Amino acid sequence: MSEVSEGRRARGGGGAARRAERTAVRIECAKFIERNIPNLEILNEEALEIIEANAETILQEVGVNFVENPEALKRWKDAGADVDGERVRIPKGLARQLCKTAPSSYVQHARNPERNVTVGGRGLVFAPVYGPPFVRDADGGRRYATLDDFHKFVKLGYMSKWLHHSGGTVCEPTDIPVNKRHLDMLLAHMTLSDKPYMGSVTEPVRAADSVEMSKILFGNDFVDQNTVMTSLVNINSPMTFDGIMMGALEVYAKANQACIISPFIVGGAMAPVTVAGTLTQVMAEVLAGVAYSQLIRQGAPVIFGAFVTSIDMNSGAPTFGTPEAAHITYGAGQLARRMGLPYRSAGSFCGSKLPDAQAAYETSNSLNMGLLAGVNFMLHSCGWLEGGLVSSFEKFVMDADQLGVLHHLAKGIDMSETGQAMGAIREVGPGGHYLGCEHTQSNFKQAFWRTELLDYKPYEAWEEEGARDTVALARARVNKLLNDYQKPAIDPAVEEALNEYVAKKKASMPDAFM
Amino acid sequence: MSEVSEGRRARGGGGAARRAERTAVRIECAKFIERNIPNLEILNEEALEIIEANAETILQEVGVNFVENPEALKRWKDAGADVDGERVRIPKGLARQLCKTAPSSYVQHARNPERNVTVGGRGLVFAPVYGPPFVRDADGGRRYATLDDFHKFVKLGYMSKWLHHSGGTVCEPTDIPVNKRHLDMLLAHMTLSDKPYMGSVTEPVRAADSVEMSKILFGNDFVDQNTVMTSLVNINSPMTFDGIMMGALEVYAKANQACIISPFIVGGAMAPVTVAGTLTQVMAEVLAGVAYSQLIRQGAPVIFGAFVTSIDMNSGAPTFGTPEAAHITYGAGQLARRMGLPYRSAGSFCGSKLPDAQAAYETSNSLNMGLLAGVNFMLHSCGWLEGGLVSSFEKFVMDADQLGVLHHLAKGIDMSETGQAMGAIREVGPGGHYLGCEHTQSNFKQAFWRTELLDYKPYEAWEEEGARDTVALARARVNKLLNDYQKPAIDPAVEEALNEYVAKKKASMPDAFM
Repeated sequence: MSEVSEGRRARGGGGAARRAERTAVRIECAKFIERNIPNLEILNEEALEIIEANAETILQEVGVNFVENPEALKRWKDAGADVDGERVRIPKGLARQLCKTAPSSYVQHARNPERNVTVGGRGLVFAPVYGPPFVRDADGGRRYATLDDFHKFVKLGYMSKWLHHSGGTVCEPTDIPVNKRHLDMLLAHMTLSDKPYMGSVTEPVRAADSVEMSKILFGNDFVDQNTVMTSLVNINSPMTFDGIMMGALEVYAKANQACIISPFIVGGAMAPVTVAGTLTQVMAEVLAGVAYSQLIRQGAPVIFGAFVTSIDMNSGAPTFGTPEAAHITYGAGQLARRMGLPYRSAGSFCGSKLPDAQAAYETSNSLNMGLLAGVNFMLHSCGWLEGGLVSSFEKFVMDADQLGVLHHLAKGIDMSETGQAMGAIREVGPGGHYLGCEHTQSNFKQAFWRTELLDYKPYEAWEEEGARDTVALARARVNKLLNDYQKPAIDPAVEEALNEYVAKKKASMPDAFM
Repeated sequence: MSEVSEGRRARGGGGAARRAERTAVRIECAKFIERNIPNLEILNEEALEIIEANAETILQEVGVNFVENPEALKRWKDAGADVDGERVRIPKGLARQLCKTAPSSYVQHARNPERNVTVGGRGLVFAPVYGPPFVRDADGGRRYATLDDFHKFVKLGYMSKWLHHSGGTVCEPTDIPVNKRHLDMLLAHMTLSDKPYMGSVTEPVRAADSVEMSKILFGNDFVDQNTVMTSLVNINSPMTFDGIMMGALEVYAKANQACIISPFIVGGAMAPVTVAGTLTQVMAEVLAGVAYSQLIRQGAPVIFGAFVTSIDMNSGAPTFGTPEAAHITYGAGQLARRMGLPYRSAGSFCGSKLPDAQAAYETSNSLNMGLLAGVNFMLHSCGWLEGGLVSSFEKFVMDADQLGVLHHLAKGIDMSETGQAMGAIREVGPGGHYLGCEHTQSNFKQAFWRTELLDYKPYEAWEEEGARDTVALARARVNKLLNDYQKPAIDPAVEEALNEYVAKKKASMPDAFM
């Protein structure tokens, strides 16, 4: 079976949907990665046990804060924790016991079932950059992001073969009032793409909107019975769970929708300056967060998250693609697997202001580490620039191309007779060459990963064509993908209902820009 | 003990050497890497056994060619191989048996003993790019390399903290006759740097010159008793050992000097298009080459080499940083370890024409893989551009900075009490921050890898300073390092003798440019 599905099929829909489908361009999309290579296990058993024991000690003796959330405090008290003001101290063993009902993997459904992803196990799902208020491209430079930019990123995500997920806030549409943005963003993911998407977390009511709109798209019953969103719930490290994020988690968990429960770590600032200390804090925070999700609803799907950067102690700036972030990412992966939870970390992280060599070194360090650390859900897998302040159009397609490298790496080594190639070695013999031999001719198309972006031309040809650097090649690819884009088929009645929901909701509130 | 040695001490030398030393600037140089993290073992036992058995089958049934080398054929016949013309068929088990006398690691001495490197075991030694006829810099563009360029690269290598080895042909000094270049190159490594270096392999007489000049530098007895060079002997894949390269190997092995015995693989052209097939051929070639080195002198130090690229089947161009090259590099590392030999592979490989994002993605993929594949000697670890046609000044310092990432990654995770940081976590507590706490203050200087090149400034500061990209930052660093460079102390009598040897040798031959 091909790893890349070219077919597409709209869920439900009548004659109009089928007509739309017949005229739509067929886009390629790779199946999510199922690893056939080992993870890098950087910590030994003894080290893992120390970290786990230390995390339990912290939960019991120091505890965590659940702020502005009396309901949460009550839930914790009922579950057996020691609650003192907003401080929740969790007796050793309790959090881990509660976490046991969280599933080790789950299917996130897309409206096109061929785009469904399984999150967990040996899998790896790629989702794009999340959150930047700015965008940058080679033509327009750096500027505040708009809804028009947002639409372009969703289209680029839909057109990117190695990207499995449409993501969430691919950039902040700053021209739309903050209390209404989530509606436009969800509408874009639902109608401009048929890949899975993320829900809003900025207010519990926006999470509720995300569930309602999903019900319009998938049908009420389907959403009740299936997970159709994976949303990002950050922990305010160190060890603080705020009411808004927890409110969103509560909405999603009740609706059986998935959340990433993710410490947000800038090492040296929000966590100890050492790796083992940071892992201890991450472990304590995830134990508390996942346990809380299971207090809301046993069996609610959650992901062990770890957003990790270090800090430049001279400037205070976050740094990316560093060896310390790699250590934490590898170690947290081991902790997640021992808990039997899906794992989220890594991404196209970089601190560079431009999509230049610095950006690529840092990103590549992080992407490679993500694959080998056993990450199951990689948010920010393409398009991240300038420490997450900027979504870069060029870097989006540059990184998305590199995701193909990870797909091929993850396949492992084919040890079949064809793979062993003994016939070819005998045929060619000493001093010969393989270009013309039958084995090469039969297998070369599948043998090697091929870039759709990078330059492999002879020097002279490259020079004649303008001596373009990677940014120039990426600029051309962005334009080509946006030109080639065609909207995936959708039942017009569903689209109409979504538009109506958004219009009605928007009309019901005054604009808010803070 | 600090991983970075700042001290320096000239071998031998009298009052003049000591005076020179007192006035010299102190340069920092990291000790070679001793890994404290695991390798990625991509193949299981069964797959490894299949590849090893297949390689022995190939050696017995297909054989290898030793061309224009009657002595080699005689040696093989005496050892029990089946010799037919230039074809050498090696009965199963024989090559492996012969390889057993090759040491699992060796010390390569530098004239400054603090720069000695151990090649093998859990170690990793970085040497710079080797072989390009062109150079490129941001000011002068791409042009044929000269001896002046060569000198600059040797100086940059000496000034690069994370680089352990001065290398060999860091670029081809094309303004010097081909039959005399090696003399100028050796002289430069010996006098402009005090790091270990490589010998010439382009003719056996040039290998002999390398040994003679080393005897002047280190003393006759020292060279007889110690390894002071590691030189690069390529195999003409598939399965051909040419007389010139083998002639160089013979000179070095007899003198107990080390060689990398390295298949030169462009997958799909010089090896099968599949990974397992390529590994089989690499294994067969290395078995034959290392066995031959031990026929020359039992115990001669050799490295299991694997230079690996894939090919772009559309253009025929070699490609770098690809997943297939990674598979081969990981697999070959396992084969090398099972043979108990030091391993050479990976490097700052890229196909890009410019030190741009493409170059950095490709390079970073390869550097990360090299660390995790268990490479012991990484030639080309910095400065490689355009598929090895170009030595890039800017990329040299960019890559050399990234080698620091690998140093820190390789350290692994500190599980001491300080590493665990329980006191800090208790002290800071939920909602606090770690910047001011005592644990952070005591440990931040050692905690994180710090770039000496990349930009971490706030956006506004970066913009005010000219919005420089990585190439511009690297250009400035190249200039700074060359300005700061001061020649390491050397006994003037030794330098004089080296100059004399070179002058005499040059005068003894007409210039040759082919």
